[in-house]
Amino acid sequence: MKGTYCIGLDYGTQSGRAVLVDLKTGRVAAQAVKPYTHGVMDEYLPGGLIRLPMDWALQHPQDYLEVIEYTVPEVLREAGVGGEEVVGIANDFTASTLLPVKRDGTPLCFLSAYRDNPHAYVKLWKHHAAQREAEEITRLAKERGEEFLTRYGGTVSSEWFLPKVWQILREDPKLYREADRILEAGDWVNWMLTGEERRSSCHALYKAVWSEKDGYPSREFLRQLDPGLENLVEEKLGTRIYPLGGRAGALSREWAEKTGLREGTAVGIGVVDAHAGIPGTGITGPGKLLMIMGTSTCHILLGETQEEVPGMCGVAKDGILPGFFAYEAGQACVGDHFDWLVKNCIPEEYEREAREKGISLHQLLTKKAAGQKPGESGLLALDWWNGNRTPYVDYDLTGMILGMTLTTRPEEMYRALIEATAYGANHVIETFEKAGVTIKELYACGGIAEKNPMMMQIYADVTGREIRISASDQTPALGAAMFAAVAAGKENGGYDTIFEAARAMGRVKEETYRPIAENEKVYHGLYEEYKRLCEYFARENDVMKKLKGWKKGCGNS
Amino acid sequence: MKGTYCIGLDYGTQSGRAVLVDLKTGRVAAQAVKPYTHGVMDEYLPGGLIRLPMDWALQHPQDYLEVIEYTVPEVLREAGVGGEEVVGIANDFTASTLLPVKRDGTPLCFLSAYRDNPHAYVKLWKHHAAQREAEEITRLAKERGEEFLTRYGGTVSSEWFLPKVWQILREDPKLYREADRILEAGDWVNWMLTGEERRSSCHALYKAVWSEKDGYPSREFLRQLDPGLENLVEEKLGTRIYPLGGRAGALSREWAEKTGLREGTAVGIGVVDAHAGIPGTGITGPGKLLMIMGTSTCHILLGETQEEVPGMCGVAKDGILPGFFAYEAGQACVGDHFDWLVKNCIPEEYEREAREKGISLHQLLTKKAAGQKPGESGLLALDWWNGNRTPYVDYDLTGMILGMTLTTRPEEMYRALIEATAYGANHVIETFEKAGVTIKELYACGGIAEKNPMMMQIYADVTGREIRISASDQTPALGAAMFAAVAAGKENGGYDTIFEAARAMGRVKEETYRPIAENEKVYHGLYEEYKRLCEYFARENDVMKKLKGWKKGCGNS
Repeated sequence: MKGTYCIGLDYGTQSGRAVLVDLKTGRVAAQAVKPYTHGVMDEYLPGGLIRLPMDWALQHPQDYLEVIEYTVPEVLREAGVGGEEVVGIANDFTASTLLPVKRDGTPLCFLSAYRDNPHAYVKLWKHHAAQREAEEITRLAKERGEEFLTRYGGTVSSEWFLPKVWQILREDPKLYREADRILEAGDWVNWMLTGEERRSSCHALYKAVWSEKDGYPSREFLRQLDPGLENLVEEKLGTRIYPLGGRAGALSREWAEKTGLREGTAVGIGVVDAHAGIPGTGITGPGKLLMIMGTSTCHILLGETQEEVPGMCGVAKDGILPGFFAYEAGQACVGDHFDWLVKNCIPEEYEREAREKGISLHQLLTKKAAGQKPGESGLLALDWWNGNRTPYVDYDLTGMILGMTLTTRPEEMYRALIEATAYGANHVIETFEKAGVTIKELYACGGIAEKNPMMMQIYADVTGREIRISASDQTPALGAAMFAAVAAGKENGGYDTIFEAARAMGRVKEETYRPIAENEKVYHGLYEEYKRLCEYFARENDVMKKLKGWKKGCGNS
Repeated sequence: MKGTYCIGLDYGTQSGRAVLVDLKTGRVAAQAVKPYTHGVMDEYLPGGLIRLPMDWALQHPQDYLEVIEYTVPEVLREAGVGGEEVVGIANDFTASTLLPVKRDGTPLCFLSAYRDNPHAYVKLWKHHAAQREAEEITRLAKERGEEFLTRYGGTVSSEWFLPKVWQILREDPKLYREADRILEAGDWVNWMLTGEERRSSCHALYKAVWSEKDGYPSREFLRQLDPGLENLVEEKLGTRIYPLGGRAGALSREWAEKTGLREGTAVGIGVVDAHAGIPGTGITGPGKLLMIMGTSTCHILLGETQEEVPGMCGVAKDGILPGFFAYEAGQACVGDHFDWLVKNCIPEEYEREAREKGISLHQLLTKKAAGQKPGESGLLALDWWNGNRTPYVDYDLTGMILGMTLTTRPEEMYRALIEATAYGANHVIETFEKAGVTIKELYACGGIAEKNPMMMQIYADVTGREIRISASDQTPALGAAMFAAVAAGKENGGYDTIFEAARAMGRVKEETYRPIAENEKVYHGLYEEYKRLCEYFARENDVMKKLKGWKKGCGNS
């Protein structure tokens, strides 16, 4: 029964992908991507007739199955590998991305009776319409002194499981009753593959306020929130949670036929996408902060103790690797800043120059910005175009840039925004260290870490630390594949523990980014100014919130 | 000898113009413009071989004479008016715009010996290379407790007369010695037309730290600044200063021939360009603040007492109209903000849309911004892209904008910059009122006041005051023409006083901008936030200055 490969399925916001990975070396033998047929639905339900309210973001669960049906056969074909050589498969998934289903796992949106009902679909992680519920949960938890708040930086986010579930109950109690189960899409995909409902500890720990010691929030707490929620856990969630590295079950005959994999292939418990980056980068111990850099940045760090870190997203024992506390923190907006600038603030002559050179505007601006020295632009920005996650957890904070003169150029603003996100990353690092969680090394993965050496050098100069880059350009998918290898076990050619898998299959590039002393010195001064302005606008002057108030008064948000 | 017309010559930064004005009604019968042949020389001397240092801005005096030779015959021709019908001519001029000349008025730069010497040319008002001299003058004046500082908001600007003269002495003492006279270009033009050197009180009061009571700064002060300056007044300036409304002399035969005007036509004492706007708008009494709105804004106001206004540019008894104290204040950057945004931050799709519609980007952005309600963008900016004149007199302050989110659009930033300049104007108004100078009414003239109703409505809403717009689109030129009419006198068809001339010839449009109550309310709140941020960045947090420091450390300024 020994095989040579495992498969990681990576479910992102716009598409899903499969990577076929060599069990011994971690080499990606093949990969395939499938954009979701329905993409992100934030304006209309399928059919284009039913309009969604503001702040909604839905997905269609059929799209997740299509990803498997298309990409798994594709990677086998591309690599010329037979299904019998694959010993395990596991997914990483955005979270909390949840859906209501019937007792047999059928999503309510598959049933014609619910097809026109928005609450029957998948609520994507960035569905922000349960903000009110999130605030009420936080308030009640504070009132009652719920201990779980200390594990989540003091705030429950509207992106999490419970506010979204409560929104269903409040806005469509009938549909809520019809939903026999409500679960993370990552867990649902495994259910479809195996016929068994087994929920991942990773999703539960970070998105559903669950802990091994205390379970979910108490019946008492839920009842006080809303009498209708009292039996939520017993009725729709269940109390059995399965640890990462375990098996979600065995691949069913139906899905063996659809994919070309062997029936009974081990299906690993799923993992939150960012968290999969830790083993994916080969990190197996504490003190190594991983930045998963894309439109936003997730920071994941293992520690040996549980500390209260202001504004962290969550900390959980055994959250990723057994025996360690895994911390999650975040920057709400990173690549999105640069995209905003490129879309809204770059003049025609630059567009023309980029076209003539056959490069993107991002490449052109990076080229132009690369020659600037730290401090040369005279600009300083706060990276809050999408609010702030760590350390303030305040989505009503907004972007700021200062230092403009009549000679300020677009590439200077571009670089100022990059620098601002580097200051933001350093702010996260400082926040951890102040809370007693040591950071010895920095790691990065994701599109930006891969493709933008100027940006990574700025991060090294601003943080004053060497930065190692994940060797894989599909780090979370590789991490998911490792959990598949562990689910398969050593006897099948896999591994007994995620530590062994990560050591064998994960690695970083040889080249690293090292801080340049003279840049570090200037950035040190600039960062102090950044921090002073952060504190001013987050704590002393609430002008950003007042401006949002006026904006809302005009019917905008 | 009675005539029907007078002529105002308006010398701007890029061009000069003549307006032929009906003495009775103030109607402009004809106007003509002549761009300066040499424009503004800020990189090279004529010939393109001799490079100018940073912050220099020169002009060629020949260009001023060409303006007269071309535009005066042109307006006569266009209106079909004979030279004998014109009773007077006078100019308004940018200031301090000065040049060194020989005893007969010949500019040193006309002489081949000095042609390659930058100090032989006209130093334009925006020549900023005498910053060090300005600072040393301010410092010494403070040390010595010189009373003149109280008339200038406490600071001598590098744009004024004395720093520029001192720069010549310091950098080219030989040329300084060869200069028999150094004077304002507006006075020099009159000298050329009449053969007599008669200096205007308006230029001397506002740009040369002169007052009727005390004259120029004392010999003692000048000697302490630099022994070489001790005899400046006696040797190169002279102590006779002529009041506005008076005659600079009679038009010479040579210039009568060149222009088609009658020999002996009255030439009026010249006036600073912005100051000419007061009679040009028909203002003849105190409490009416005139905003001359262009790339920057000048604020001129008559008062009945002399008060110390923080950051004002100057106050002078009889500065414009006899019997009143005339205050000058300013916003360093108004139209320039919008130009900066249009040049640097507007994406290609907007350029394309403007082209398709056959309108300018400014027009397109105004159209898009016009639909926004106050507060709707969620943005707030500080109008400091070019520093701040009133009330902080601090050119090291820089621009700031905050409130950006990922959905912020260019037209919202455009409107935020317009609003910021309106807050800046309101800040000037408040500064006057706090200092005890009453403002009862607001007036505006200049290109922006003429052409942008959205902007003027925003100014009305922000200031909470009705705004009247000058009826003329050439208000300063019209004001100059009034001084020509007074120089000619009633016996020649002109007027005995500038009051009579202004009442007869100056007026405002019938339509005014009135504040809209609901907008005023929101803007009142926004303005309070603006002011709080002004105080913070000007007084409490010197981050803008620190950023300029780092910038300079990189070899930029």
